[in-house]
Formats: sequence, C-alpha cells, structure tokens
Amino acid sequence: MDDERTEDRRAPADHPIHELIRGRWSPYAFAPEGVPVEDLLSLFEAARWAPSSYNEQPWHYLAARREDGPSFGKLLGCLVEANRVWAQHAGVLVLTVARMTLTRNGKPNSKALHDVGLASAQLTIEAAARGLSVHQMGGILPDRAREEFDIPADFEPVTALAIGRLGDPGILPESLRDRDREPRVRRALEETVYGPAWGEPAPFVKESK
Amino acid sequence: MDDERTEDRRAPADHPIHELIRGRWSPYAFAPEGVPVEDLLSLFEAARWAPSSYNEQPWHYLAARREDGPSFGKLLGCLVEANRVWAQHAGVLVLTVARMTLTRNGKPNSKALHDVGLASAQLTIEAAARGLSVHQMGGILPDRAREEFDIPADFEPVTALAIGRLGDPGILPESLRDRDREPRVRRALEETVYGPAWGEPAPFVKESK
Repeated sequence: MDDERTEDRRAPADHPIHELIRGRWSPYAFAPEGVPVEDLLSLFEAARWAPSSYNEQPWHYLAARREDGPSFGKLLGCLVEANRVWAQHAGVLVLTVARMTLTRNGKPNSKALHDVGLASAQLTIEAAARGLSVHQMGGILPDRAREEFDIPADFEPVTALAIGRLGDPGILPESLRDRDREPRVRRALEETVYGPAWGEPAPFVKESK
Repeated sequence: MDDERTEDRRAPADHPIHELIRGRWSPYAFAPEGVPVEDLLSLFEAARWAPSSYNEQPWHYLAARREDGPSFGKLLGCLVEANRVWAQHAGVLVLTVARMTLTRNGKPNSKALHDVGLASAQLTIEAAARGLSVHQMGGILPDRAREEFDIPADFEPVTALAIGRLGDPGILPESLRDRDREPRVRRALEETVYGPAWGEPAPFVKESK
C-alpha cells in the first residue's frame, strides 16, 4: 500500500526534480509502529550536516519514540489539539528547538529559525530515502514545551515533527480522512522567482513558459 | 577535478546518510561559467515543493545568471564585501526573501524564516543531484537589497545563494584559498538530540555510542 499511495502523492512538478523531493509529502495517517533506531539516527545525522550561518548549528531536538512511553506522551502534549488527533499514531515525535543566540558572543542569531528549517528539510529527505514519512507542524504549544522540558530562555521551540510509516486513513476522524488525498498545490514559479525587479519574473522563468 | 574534490568533501558522518546529503558542502571556489536554464528551473522547482506552515510558501527569490548582466551586478552588490570576493565567480546569484505576514489575514507568520530555510535546503539538494554547488550566505545587505529591488515592507531578505560549478581555488585571494580544504565539523548528536529532559540525550542516541 505504501508504494501505491506514495506514487499518488508525488508532486505534479512543472520541471523535473529528484524523486526524493518529488515523493516527499506530509501525511496525516501514520501506522502506529516503531521506527528502527538505525533509521532514526540517520535522520538526525542528515539534519546534523545541514549548513548554517557561522556553522552555529542552532538546531536542537527533543525526541521520543512510541516505545519511550512518558517522553512520547509529554511531546504529544506539546502539540495543539488538532495535531494530537493524528500525530498520536506516529512512530516518533520530535520538537525542533532553535538556539536564538550566537554561541560565540551571545548576540541574537537572526538566521536561527531559518537554519532549523534547513536541518529539518535534510532530515525529511533522509526519511524519504528510507521509506519513512515526516509531517512537520507549526501548531505547537511553545510555553508548555518550555515548561515540560525546562528549555532555557535563549532557546525557542519552533516546530514538531511526526515521523513514521504511512498508515491507513481509516484510523483518522472523518474530518481528516480526505486530507491525504487532496491535490497538492503550489504557487507558480513566475510569482516566486523574480529577476530585474520585485514582481517581475526572472527572464529564465518567463522564457520557460 | 570536480569528482575528486567532491569526494574529499563528503561529510564524515557517524551514521549512514544519503549520498546527496553527505556530498553537499558550501564551496568558496566557483567556476565562472553559466548554469543551464533547465537545471536552474529544476532547482527552483525543488524549492517550490517544500512544505510550509499553512502552505503559505513564504519563499520568494530575486535571481540572476551571470548572463543577465546588470541584475547579476545588482545582486552582487547586496552581499557583504567579504562574500562578494568569492561569490562574484558563481554562475547564478539568488537573494532569498521571506513574506513575513500570512497571505490570508496579514498577521505575522512566525514560521516564515524557517520555511524559507526548508525551501533553500530542497534547492540545494536538487543542485547536488545535478552536480552543482550552492553556498548559502547570511552575510547580505538587506537595506540595500530592499532599495535596489523595491522589496515591499512585509517581505524580508534572508540569505543569498551562490550557485554554480566547483572552480579552482587558485582564483581566490590567499586568505580564502584554504577554506575549501578545512575539515568539516559538526556538534555531536548527544549534544543535539535530547529525550526525557533538556540536555539529556535521547535514549536511542545514548545507546548508539
């Protein structure tokens, strides 16, 4: 089933892109099974090798497998209710946390959130290469996370990641069941890649139409 | 030469990761040659299919090929001097710009910078798959960029990307020549992936040592 559904969900790309990027999507239906430790280590290793401003590596993680029991429940509690409904079935939950200050001088790191995004993307691509899915969420309860895990003041919870294998949408409440079948849409490149001036498509984009 | 140098620069990973992630690095020495338009379109297409909070797709780009003449020079002028020295040789320069407000209600998008990072990572992985290098830079002149390109108030310049083929470090000033040979270092997973509490490594990380 995994293969068939992954096939269905591949991005309807206008220009050829690598299969790992094309095949990545964010499912709501996870199979309630564990993620092998070797895979999990490789996911975080992929995040680890992301580039970052001044090589500050502002990314930090709170992670729990279903098997970790209380930690998994604590992380689940840091998601907004609408995300708990489906994310409870994931094999692994992760909270991404950004160090908002530079280690070398304590000043604000204006690229911290950006660089956490870089790392999460690498983690997600590594997951795709291993037949695993990642659903990234902005809907978290940062204050609760800070309290539950004693996150220091200069660190900021950013997103949560549900990681695991694709599951049967039948386990989801009806309101969510169709989400994994909705068409995948993105803004056109002409409205995204500008050239000589803001709002004016780059020549190479305009010519490609 | 490309292959040999790329081989040298592969990340000394502690756990297996996909070759596209392992092989990605940020060179200073670019060959002053153009990037084929088909490749460039695929790079932006890869960015386009990144996930984002509420599918807001906050990423926008100002992009110029060397062949685009004045636009390339304008973008080069938006980098800090230390980056101009080497980035002038890249085939393509890009400024990434985040829409800082939500399109649906105009409120702040707290995930905007993060999601621009996601998109840049996908662009960079697509480049790696095509034998192209990307060097992401935090060192830009945002005010100058805003003025030069009339970037609207609710958008914020985030990073610049130099894109192209690996070049001969001999074209770089001596101070930069060795940068492309420095060891690649990252913080250990035990200091990055916590479990039950902040600062305490996740069990699956601790057990892997």
